[in-house]
Amino acid sequence: MKKAAKTTVWVGDAHSCLEIRYLTGYAAVDPAMLVMRGRRGILVVSRLDVVRARKTAGSIRVCSPEDLKMPARYKKRLSGRAIAAIQELGARRVSVPEGFPVGIAQDLEKSGIGVSVVAADTLVDRSVKTPGEIRKIAEVQRAAVAGMLAAIGMLRRSRPDAKGHLRLGRTTVASELVRHEIEKVLFEHGCDTTETIVAGGRQAVDPHEPGHGPLHANEAIVIDIFPQSRKHGYWGDLTRTVVRGTAPAPLREQYRAVMAAHSAALRRVKAGISAASVHRAAADEFVRRGFETKKIGDRYVGFRHGLGHGVGLRVHEAPSVTLSGKRLKKGNVITIEPGLYYPATGGVRIEDTVVVTATGWRYLASCAKKLEV
Amino acid sequence: MKKAAKTTVWVGDAHSCLEIRYLTGYAAVDPAMLVMRGRRGILVVSRLDVVRARKTAGSIRVCSPEDLKMPARYKKRLSGRAIAAIQELGARRVSVPEGFPVGIAQDLEKSGIGVSVVAADTLVDRSVKTPGEIRKIAEVQRAAVAGMLAAIGMLRRSRPDAKGHLRLGRTTVASELVRHEIEKVLFEHGCDTTETIVAGGRQAVDPHEPGHGPLHANEAIVIDIFPQSRKHGYWGDLTRTVVRGTAPAPLREQYRAVMAAHSAALRRVKAGISAASVHRAAADEFVRRGFETKKIGDRYVGFRHGLGHGVGLRVHEAPSVTLSGKRLKKGNVITIEPGLYYPATGGVRIEDTVVVTATGWRYLASCAKKLEV
Repeated sequence: MKKAAKTTVWVGDAHSCLEIRYLTGYAAVDPAMLVMRGRRGILVVSRLDVVRARKTAGSIRVCSPEDLKMPARYKKRLSGRAIAAIQELGARRVSVPEGFPVGIAQDLEKSGIGVSVVAADTLVDRSVKTPGEIRKIAEVQRAAVAGMLAAIGMLRRSRPDAKGHLRLGRTTVASELVRHEIEKVLFEHGCDTTETIVAGGRQAVDPHEPGHGPLHANEAIVIDIFPQSRKHGYWGDLTRTVVRGTAPAPLREQYRAVMAAHSAALRRVKAGISAASVHRAAADEFVRRGFETKKIGDRYVGFRHGLGHGVGLRVHEAPSVTLSGKRLKKGNVITIEPGLYYPATGGVRIEDTVVVTATGWRYLASCAKKLEV
Repeated sequence: MKKAAKTTVWVGDAHSCLEIRYLTGYAAVDPAMLVMRGRRGILVVSRLDVVRARKTAGSIRVCSPEDLKMPARYKKRLSGRAIAAIQELGARRVSVPEGFPVGIAQDLEKSGIGVSVVAADTLVDRSVKTPGEIRKIAEVQRAAVAGMLAAIGMLRRSRPDAKGHLRLGRTTVASELVRHEIEKVLFEHGCDTTETIVAGGRQAVDPHEPGHGPLHANEAIVIDIFPQSRKHGYWGDLTRTVVRGTAPAPLREQYRAVMAAHSAALRRVKAGISAASVHRAAADEFVRRGFETKKIGDRYVGFRHGLGHGVGLRVHEAPSVTLSGKRLKKGNVITIEPGLYYPATGGVRIEDTVVVTATGWRYLASCAKKLEV
């Protein structure tokens, strides 16, 4: 007897349910509902969005709630759309991802539909990218490089004043100004971004601090750019650390250690290798060079974050490249971003986004690494 | 006996769970977890984000998963954070919104925590805006007006060529060019936007068609701008319809009807009035003027969408201003956007975003309405 095709249900907008965008190409502004049974699918969108959704949905049937027969008591609710589409595909049991709305799951069960909750990536593995997806991420990564070059160019043109504040003519070069320059370039490349990091000195010791106020000569400035394409929704991710002027010797050592960890990690990357061992390669390099990671008070210093993460329709997604990371697969797109953070010297992070291949990896876009500019 | 304070749990990033941003001001890139018991709350974020989250969270305690005691089997999961924070607040039952992840809800129940699923707006009513929120939406609405003026200015400077295509010198004025101009202005005003509508002629008969290709003289061009502040996440929403050149008489009639419906609807708006009756005021005006709404084949023509919607941290949110709308409250921020769509004449929509007051309403930003430009 042939096993019945599995039925899966997805619900959300382009942000809250990436799988709908992934499976149908449709970027929903208002919550959409997708039911897939094997290769057959029904995508339910607002009446006003049917034409737009059909442009990308391929063989998946697109309809509006009005086109479906649904129980009167669920008519006003997303549940009604799910029940109707599930019945139309002839399914009695469905699988839903862990993030599926509990309210709809309860309504499905009340209508006699069995619901199994499973991890989203067992239903759809977005972590292995197609060549088309890799091209899209590379396009965004090139935009990130353009933003980085603009930022570094601005710092290079600047001169320190008597207080060591960087200046461009009469303008103080603050984190906000450099960030604005980066975001302008990203915009011109068709990308949006939320919280570009341009953090100097002690500010950069907190890896997620966006940075604010005047930037200074002779100290590390961490620039972390993560744009998202307005057109197709894929992200890129790139970090460089630079010094305008001369880096103090301890900072130079720290930079060399991060460069060495970056290389050590990349040397291990290829399909079939455990991501945890890639993280460990970087961590071991730091230990070997005497750069400790430890807790001081309630803060960590040293290599205080995971080595990397997957990049795709989300900026942080599977596979995780940390101590709990699993095996890398061909087509994974991951960041490699070792960093060291100490209050005395500042933060240093170098990050590239690479695609995992059968024999190793390749950069999605190239961007020079140079500490002093 | 004093009734125990209700405990609510929220989970998600800044897009998928707006209530966390609403309650704590924190815009999470990676999923955060918020447990509120009465006025006490715990916000769990990644170790790297603790400092940033504390800046806005006020009296809510911010911590990282490492700071919480949690059952080993849930350690790697968001569920563990929820269980630990709920126990720390001494609760045994929680309420979660309908959109809460079913996987976490199941884990809570497995750990003996009772879960009630309720509508999100019964837990937190985001539809009534504070003066601070209204200022933020007004700021975004002014950015939308600036974008609109730039777009209309571009159309006004254009001249039709022999085929009736609008031109600026040797450049064809296409939907894409006008959209880029709008998005550039929004960017300069600190706003992002995804799918600004600049749709001319028959394209605008589909209210959600973004528009593409050359724009023409003497036909209706619908411009619908909905920016979101990069800084605080609030949205605005504004639509105008213009003709470069001369509008044909039937289109002028259609425009007058939309203007009349806009006024008729606004005349009804005040706190305590049913939103459905506001929608009906616009619909009745169309009927009175002989503009029919009906289904032709599988498409609707006429007044084919709801009159409006709430605007806040989401561009479409409560209260709905449609036939199923409930009573308006003082502090609701809503759009009033009547429209008429016919293949023979094109689409016309006029949309403003207003705040509901005790005695009526007021515009959040003013923008002239003029058909021919």
